[in-house]
Amino acid sequence: MTTDTTHQQTERGQPDLTSGAAWMRGTIMPIGVASIPLNDWGLIHSDITYDVVPVWDGGFFRLDLYVQRFFRSMKSLRLDPGMSESDVKTVLHKLVAATALKRAYVAMVTSRGVNTVPGSRDPRDCRNHFFAWCVPYIHVIRPDIAETGASVHVARTVTRIPSSSVDARVKNYHWGDFTKGLFEAKDAGAETVLLLDQDGNVTEGPGFNVFSIKDDCLVTPDAGVLEGISRRTVLEIGAELGLVTETRTLPLEELLQSDEVLISTSGGGVSPITKIDDRLFSNGSPGELTTAIKGRYFAWASSPEHRTEIDYEFVS
Amino acid sequence: MTTDTTHQQTERGQPDLTSGAAWMRGTIMPIGVASIPLNDWGLIHSDITYDVVPVWDGGFFRLDLYVQRFFRSMKSLRLDPGMSESDVKTVLHKLVAATALKRAYVAMVTSRGVNTVPGSRDPRDCRNHFFAWCVPYIHVIRPDIAETGASVHVARTVTRIPSSSVDARVKNYHWGDFTKGLFEAKDAGAETVLLLDQDGNVTEGPGFNVFSIKDDCLVTPDAGVLEGISRRTVLEIGAELGLVTETRTLPLEELLQSDEVLISTSGGGVSPITKIDDRLFSNGSPGELTTAIKGRYFAWASSPEHRTEIDYEFVS
Repeated sequence: MTTDTTHQQTERGQPDLTSGAAWMRGTIMPIGVASIPLNDWGLIHSDITYDVVPVWDGGFFRLDLYVQRFFRSMKSLRLDPGMSESDVKTVLHKLVAATALKRAYVAMVTSRGVNTVPGSRDPRDCRNHFFAWCVPYIHVIRPDIAETGASVHVARTVTRIPSSSVDARVKNYHWGDFTKGLFEAKDAGAETVLLLDQDGNVTEGPGFNVFSIKDDCLVTPDAGVLEGISRRTVLEIGAELGLVTETRTLPLEELLQSDEVLISTSGGGVSPITKIDDRLFSNGSPGELTTAIKGRYFAWASSPEHRTEIDYEFVS
Repeated sequence: MTTDTTHQQTERGQPDLTSGAAWMRGTIMPIGVASIPLNDWGLIHSDITYDVVPVWDGGFFRLDLYVQRFFRSMKSLRLDPGMSESDVKTVLHKLVAATALKRAYVAMVTSRGVNTVPGSRDPRDCRNHFFAWCVPYIHVIRPDIAETGASVHVARTVTRIPSSSVDARVKNYHWGDFTKGLFEAKDAGAETVLLLDQDGNVTEGPGFNVFSIKDDCLVTPDAGVLEGISRRTVLEIGAELGLVTETRTLPLEELLQSDEVLISTSGGGVSPITKIDDRLFSNGSPGELTTAIKGRYFAWASSPEHRTEIDYEFVS
């Protein structure tokens, strides 16, 4: 996510795409030169949706699920860039191949676009457009911290935007609540933040879902959260491990009584949370079940049945 | 807000800035070529604030109030592009002078920027940046419609993002609720939309505050809304006209019992609302008090005490 190296040229004079690339209007370019207009509604109204699929060791993980969700998000927002699921998959494939990245974080985005009628305030007058970008794999929790367990701060000055206002299941860039919470967390010395809803129930954090493990029960909130693909993977792995899995209301008090706490994200898979505010979990180190789930997550990411291998010779 | 003509050159070979211009990093350019990076947090986290000051017949209207609010918004979001209020005013002045526009809609924007640490999820690692843009004056309600009175739809499928999640007083681009409401309004054949809070009280619409007039009382909501400069102007004009002005909770039922309804916005000043859903106000044409307030609004915009005249010869 840096721009510092993206203008570098390789020895053959080709732009260096290894630090990130974008696909826009049929062209692949270094991410540092990719931009959108100042008056695109994606920016000035955050009228935009996206999804992010991980590439792990040369293959997309659960690509179909991510692309299907992306199309559900577009439909919900009445965005239509005139592309099929197959078109989008082809673009993502070409883009990752062009970067030669074996582990990558690949974003697909559709924006409302620029209004084509001067002065119009009608979203129907905008030309929707799709673009994609790809950077080296991002860890929502830094790997060295994820190894030993991360600390989470529960936000006190802000609550999660309710789905009655902006549907959390439709992946969006309305992160004002998360960002305010992140500042609060950093001030408190924590790694990241967890937001509650207006009734004090657990929702999610910036880029991740959260799970409580108590005895043989694995619980994650069911409302006001993104229905994460990694969340789904963790629920499926939990069932595979013989845990009782539940998606339901999760009050903060209950989360704080967990044996173990973990988060799931496409940017890092599964990470143990060993501290929430002043409360330590599993003696401050990653719990047994969390470690088991984390191991299986990366096993799944390497398993042919969940992968779409990338042909790095694939060019347009 | 169109890009179609912004690449045109004038006869002397200078870029045509009359359809809009932007100031970025010290350079003034046609708005059609101004853009921000794909991975700017202003886009990917809507981590950005802005303000918009109107230019009316060659002068800024209440410039100090807009710039002061912009700085309050930045402070609240912990954004700092390293500019003073005076710096910002100078940029806006130069920008409008360069376009030669006598009536304009002038936006000042500060974005969190691009994260300078690869893979960092910490907002403190971003380089905040300021930019500005300017287009011919925008009417939130089209002038021909504002003349006879606009119709408003009350959103049923979406409520306003509560200020406990994103502070409405800090001008922001989290418009997902407004956009969903706008689609609902357009489907219903109405001009624009009004959002309620979770308790059924009136908040605001996309780009405007709303007022109820009943007998000699002028009421506007006090919570969950932008504290608009135009709203303030209408309250001041209301007092000048001898009305009792109140900022307080305004239930929808009370709004529907109004004698007259009006909206205030920096994009058009004061516009009468003659219809909300199926309810007509003042027999479906602009009411007497609304017309009086509207007249005074534009008198204020022409009055030296509220204006900062633009020196169109002003160049850097």
